[in-house]
Amino acid sequence: MTDDGLAIGVDIGGTKISAGAVDPSGTVVDRELRETPERTTTPAVAEDLIVEAVSALAARHAVVAVGVGAAGFVNADRTRVMFAPHLSWRNEPLAVKLADRLGRPVLLDNDANTALWGEQAFGAARGVADAVLITLGTGIGGALLIDGVVHRGRNGMAGEFGHMQVVPAGRPCECGNTGCWEQYCSGKALRRFVADAGSPLTGAEITEAAYAGDPVALGAYGEVGRWLGTGVAGVVAALDPERVIIGGGVSAGGELLLGPARTTLAATLVGRNHRPLPDLVPAQLGADAGLVGAAQMARAAVAG
Amino acid sequence: MTDDGLAIGVDIGGTKISAGAVDPSGTVVDRELRETPERTTTPAVAEDLIVEAVSALAARHAVVAVGVGAAGFVNADRTRVMFAPHLSWRNEPLAVKLADRLGRPVLLDNDANTALWGEQAFGAARGVADAVLITLGTGIGGALLIDGVVHRGRNGMAGEFGHMQVVPAGRPCECGNTGCWEQYCSGKALRRFVADAGSPLTGAEITEAAYAGDPVALGAYGEVGRWLGTGVAGVVAALDPERVIIGGGVSAGGELLLGPARTTLAATLVGRNHRPLPDLVPAQLGADAGLVGAAQMARAAVAG
Repeated sequence: MTDDGLAIGVDIGGTKISAGAVDPSGTVVDRELRETPERTTTPAVAEDLIVEAVSALAARHAVVAVGVGAAGFVNADRTRVMFAPHLSWRNEPLAVKLADRLGRPVLLDNDANTALWGEQAFGAARGVADAVLITLGTGIGGALLIDGVVHRGRNGMAGEFGHMQVVPAGRPCECGNTGCWEQYCSGKALRRFVADAGSPLTGAEITEAAYAGDPVALGAYGEVGRWLGTGVAGVVAALDPERVIIGGGVSAGGELLLGPARTTLAATLVGRNHRPLPDLVPAQLGADAGLVGAAQMARAAVAG
Repeated sequence: MTDDGLAIGVDIGGTKISAGAVDPSGTVVDRELRETPERTTTPAVAEDLIVEAVSALAARHAVVAVGVGAAGFVNADRTRVMFAPHLSWRNEPLAVKLADRLGRPVLLDNDANTALWGEQAFGAARGVADAVLITLGTGIGGALLIDGVVHRGRNGMAGEFGHMQVVPAGRPCECGNTGCWEQYCSGKALRRFVADAGSPLTGAEITEAAYAGDPVALGAYGEVGRWLGTGVAGVVAALDPERVIIGGGVSAGGELLLGPARTTLAATLVGRNHRPLPDLVPAQLGADAGLVGAAQMARAAVAG
C-alpha cells in the first residue's frame, strides 16, 4: 500500500469527529478520532479538533484533498454550516476557516450527502443513476442522487425527509413542528416504542434482543419498519428512484426493519400494479460512509 | 402570422381531448376539441379522436412536430400509457400507434410533465433551474424540474405527490390506499369541505362564492390551502426547489388558496430560520399549459 491518491475524509457527528485517510478504492488506511464537544462549546473548539485530527493524518501521509461531512445544514455553495443541531455553528464559514488553517482546499457538505458520495463510489448506489439515501440515526438524514449527481437543491437542504409531516398534530418534533416522519421512524422512535411497551431495553440492546426473538424489540422494529415503508412510498411517489438505500444505526436491524418496510411499500406505493418496486436495500459502508464519502467528494473535486 | 415552426400539442384529459397548433412563442393559433369517450370505450376510439383532431390541424398548417400529454402514467421511454384513470388504456403503445397513423413522429408524456414544459418555456418556471409543479384538479398532478430538465424518474412516474400519505388511516383514496394528500388538497376535497359544511355550492360556484366572501367557500379554500402548505412543506423538505408552481382548476382560487398555503409553509418548513422560503406562485398558462407544453416538448425533440 502506498500513499498514492490518499484523501482525508472527516465526519462530524453528534458525538464524535471521525477523520481518516482514504485510498482511491475507498479503504480507510489511517484514522484519527476526537470527541465532539458539547453544544455549549464555542465553534472554535470544534474547529480546533478538526484541524488537529486532519493535521495528524496529513503529517503521516501525502494527501491530495480534504473533505468534511457535517451533521447540519450546509449552504448552497458548500462553504458554510448554516445550522448544526448538535454543535454551536450558526452561519459558520467552516470550509474557508479550515482551508485557511490547513493551507489546503477543504470541500464541505452535509453528512448525508457525503455518505451518498461514499455509497455511490463504493457501496449500495454503485451504477445507479437515481437513488435516495435515508439514514436512520437519532433522527432521519437523507440525500438524493439524480442522474448520477448528488442533488443539493437551491439552499443545499434537499433530502430533509425526516421533517415531512406524516401525522397531523402528531408528536412534537425538535424542529418545532408536529408529526414529523422522524418522530415515528428513527432510533429515537425505536427506543420510544420499546419504552412504551414497558421494556427496559435501550440502544444496541434493542437490536440484540430483536435478533434473539424478543417480542417487544421485534415489535418496535416492525413498527419503525412500517413507518419506513409508508414514508418511502411517499418519497418514491415524488421521485421514482431506482433504489432506496437505508443507512444509519437503526439499519443494523437489517431485515427486521426492511422486511416490514418492503411489505408496506409494496402494499401502498402509487401505481404499484404498473411499475416495478424500487430496490429497498441496506447501505453498505456502515459508520464509515460519511468519512469515506467526504474523502471521495474531495478527491473528485481536485480531479475535476 | 405565418406557419413557421408550428407544432401541434394535444392534451388528453378526463373529459376532453384538446389539440392546438402552437407557434414558437407559445401562442395557440388554431384549435380542435373532442369529447373524451367514457372509460368503457375501447382505446381505439380515443385514438381515432386524437388522429382526427391532429389531422384536421395538420391539414390546415405545416407543422414540425406533434406532442401529446396524457392524464395517466407514461412509461420511462415515453412510448406507452401504462394506466390512464379516465380512459381504458393499459400498457398502450400510444406514441407508436399515433406515429404510424399520422405518418410523423409523436412525442408523448404525462400531462403534468407537458404542463411543466409549457410553464418552463412560457410561464411560471421561466429561468428557474429547480421547480416543482403541483396541479390541483379533481386530484393532484405533479412534475419536477431538476437542473432545468423535466425529471421523470426510473419509470416515468416521478411527481405523483398526490398519493403521499398525509393522514394515517385517513380517507380512502381511489388508488386503494388511505390518507393520500389529494383526498385533502384537490378539487374533490374542496367540494367535500363545502358539502360537509351543508352548503349546496359546487364546482366553479365555490370559487365565485369565495371571491364574493361566502364564509363556507372561503373556509373550504382555507382548508385546502393549509393542506397545500403542509404538503408543499414536505415536498420542499425533500427537494429544496427554488419555486413551487400551483396549477389546475383549484388554482383559480388564487390568493384565497395560496395565502393560507404560504402561511402554513412559512410556519412549518424545516430549517425555516436558515433558508429563504421558496416562491409559491400560480401557474401562468392556465388550461392551455398541457397543450402548449406538449407542442413545446415535441418542438424541442425535433430541434434535437
